[in-house]
Amino acid sequence: MCENTEDGSSGFVEKRYFTFAEPPDELILENGSALGPVTLAYETLGTLNQERSNAILVLHALSGDSHVAGKYSEADPKPGWWDTMVGPGKGIDTDRYFVICSNILGGCMGSTGPGSFNPKTGEPYGLEFPMITISDMVRCQKALIDHLGIRRILAVIGGSLGGMQALEWCVRYPEMVTAAIPIASTTKHSAQAIAFNEAARQSIVADPNWNNGRYYGGIKPNLGLAVARMIGHITYLSDESMTLKFDRHLQDKTEFSYNFDVDFKVESYLRYQGAKFTERFDANSLLYITKAADYFDLKIHRESGPQTESLRQGGARFLVISFTSDWLYPTYQSKAIVKVLKRIGLDVSFCEINAEWGHDAFLINNDNLTVLVKGFLERVYRETSH
Amino acid sequence: MCENTEDGSSGFVEKRYFTFAEPPDELILENGSALGPVTLAYETLGTLNQERSNAILVLHALSGDSHVAGKYSEADPKPGWWDTMVGPGKGIDTDRYFVICSNILGGCMGSTGPGSFNPKTGEPYGLEFPMITISDMVRCQKALIDHLGIRRILAVIGGSLGGMQALEWCVRYPEMVTAAIPIASTTKHSAQAIAFNEAARQSIVADPNWNNGRYYGGIKPNLGLAVARMIGHITYLSDESMTLKFDRHLQDKTEFSYNFDVDFKVESYLRYQGAKFTERFDANSLLYITKAADYFDLKIHRESGPQTESLRQGGARFLVISFTSDWLYPTYQSKAIVKVLKRIGLDVSFCEINAEWGHDAFLINNDNLTVLVKGFLERVYRETSH
Repeated sequence: MCENTEDGSSGFVEKRYFTFAEPPDELILENGSALGPVTLAYETLGTLNQERSNAILVLHALSGDSHVAGKYSEADPKPGWWDTMVGPGKGIDTDRYFVICSNILGGCMGSTGPGSFNPKTGEPYGLEFPMITISDMVRCQKALIDHLGIRRILAVIGGSLGGMQALEWCVRYPEMVTAAIPIASTTKHSAQAIAFNEAARQSIVADPNWNNGRYYGGIKPNLGLAVARMIGHITYLSDESMTLKFDRHLQDKTEFSYNFDVDFKVESYLRYQGAKFTERFDANSLLYITKAADYFDLKIHRESGPQTESLRQGGARFLVISFTSDWLYPTYQSKAIVKVLKRIGLDVSFCEINAEWGHDAFLINNDNLTVLVKGFLERVYRETSH
Repeated sequence: MCENTEDGSSGFVEKRYFTFAEPPDELILENGSALGPVTLAYETLGTLNQERSNAILVLHALSGDSHVAGKYSEADPKPGWWDTMVGPGKGIDTDRYFVICSNILGGCMGSTGPGSFNPKTGEPYGLEFPMITISDMVRCQKALIDHLGIRRILAVIGGSLGGMQALEWCVRYPEMVTAAIPIASTTKHSAQAIAFNEAARQSIVADPNWNNGRYYGGIKPNLGLAVARMIGHITYLSDESMTLKFDRHLQDKTEFSYNFDVDFKVESYLRYQGAKFTERFDANSLLYITKAADYFDLKIHRESGPQTESLRQGGARFLVISFTSDWLYPTYQSKAIVKVLKRIGLDVSFCEINAEWGHDAFLINNDNLTVLVKGFLERVYRETSH
């Protein structure tokens, strides 16, 4: 489903769509409401082998999408969001593995979300869209994997919200997952992480153009969404990386403006990131996805319980990765995952990577990360494919 | 100027006003513009001794005011913002010292700020108010100290933005400061601190009721201001304290709402703090004061220079204090202050207090903090009063 090239890039990829849960067979969500039809936008790279044993499911973070690597066409200015990791010969080697990435349920990049048409009203859902959870996202991915004829996934891998989905996969479909790589993630959203999400949501809700979620076809709540993104963006970086990148450098001036224009480079950067985000992201999607993150609590820290038992029975192998400067999902949260997995008796490797770029470190080219992921996948593939 | 009582409280205090820089003798600000008249609201506790050698100037943080301790009347529901530290027998002992605290220039609690009447227009200043700096705040405090007939201050003390003012005092009026206690502060605002301030400012500016600063007498930009406060409030706490205080506890419910109402206690807390703030604080003041903080850079890290030389000549004694869980002005920033002061050859004590409550730890009753401040002040008073 993609053409690999010889220059190390993933070549051209194609966005595809899979629709399921057509009424009256709607998907019953975790909160009890029915949703259907559901469409997932997805992309694949590499080739599924005959044994269908080389599938790797990449799970994206809050603002990601199905476009994980490669380009759609030559004219495409830049490749997918994890092109540094996914491609021929790369950490997730598309010469060897069949890589699948779908846009999450609730998203705005082709999958069903609050901006999609509600068949019951003929209008975009807006706040009629039901509240979704990480578990609902994973259940949709399961439908896609079934559709692709894959019975067992070699590895689920993702950073941040993607790591939560990876963990949820291991609990919900233990019989289908051989290995999991949760990166810069957590088993439950902390109070501080909820707090930042709530500030971001209130920023959107405070924008009169949000209009209780009914802004499709009209003026969008771009000012509120931009501030929400600014808040998020700060949490994705680190004190250290911001000092390295911006320090107190001024933007296109040598003296303070003494007004409320941009003075510092970091202000200019944040304003730009905020504005740019509004061009590609739907404010309601941000509301729904942050709420799904806040609700996430895998409840595997108890000594026993169905989630813990499920994990144990699945017997997946784990590579857990954190970054030293990540203060949104700090290392102690990854260590908590590791502790549980070890207690259950699972095969788990853990690495805290020394990186100054904060939470976003998983998205940035990092040889240590690449080597770790590549080596782990090779071992799992070698030891489990017969 | 206050009556001390025997129950350990500071008794009743009175807010007073000092006005200076009447036209045509306006204050010329750091950015070159003229401002006048200027009023400072201030309060005092304790009694100035005959030698006028027991004055302590307390400098408040971003959203503080002159009401540092005690109550205005018996009906007052709560005392000033640092009543745990300031009072008879307390860390800053009003039986012994004469304590002064004034609302900063640019504030909205009685001192001249963007909400004050502009004599040139007869309207509130709004964005006609000139941009102010920490240095401008300190110059106004100097005018008040002169007015009170005090030639030398025993100690300047403050946390956060108050610590910046304390440091600025030592550089600008070295001959007037015997000792300084900057707490949870910095010599220059970091890129991350600027970033959070900019997100808060953009939240206010995005509120259509802000109306380019002209909202006085009309609808105030309370939604934007509330989000700005939410952002700030998160930075004043810590991951640890938020987990201790809120964790993932739900607010008045046992199951998720699966809508955008409040689910978690931390959401309820933030919304409450945001809304409460709008009742007492002016959005334009927040814009001006955060900008003053962002501009702050004492430039004492250079080997030489007028600021460093000034500090050296003043010869003030220092007690520098930081808190382990403060990530807004982390310990490394306090250590940087200490390093400079030691290099200059000044008498400097440093203590990092083990506290889980983040940046706000300086506002919370803490025996270690009280004992440190009390002991340091006693030593300075004993060794310098003749």
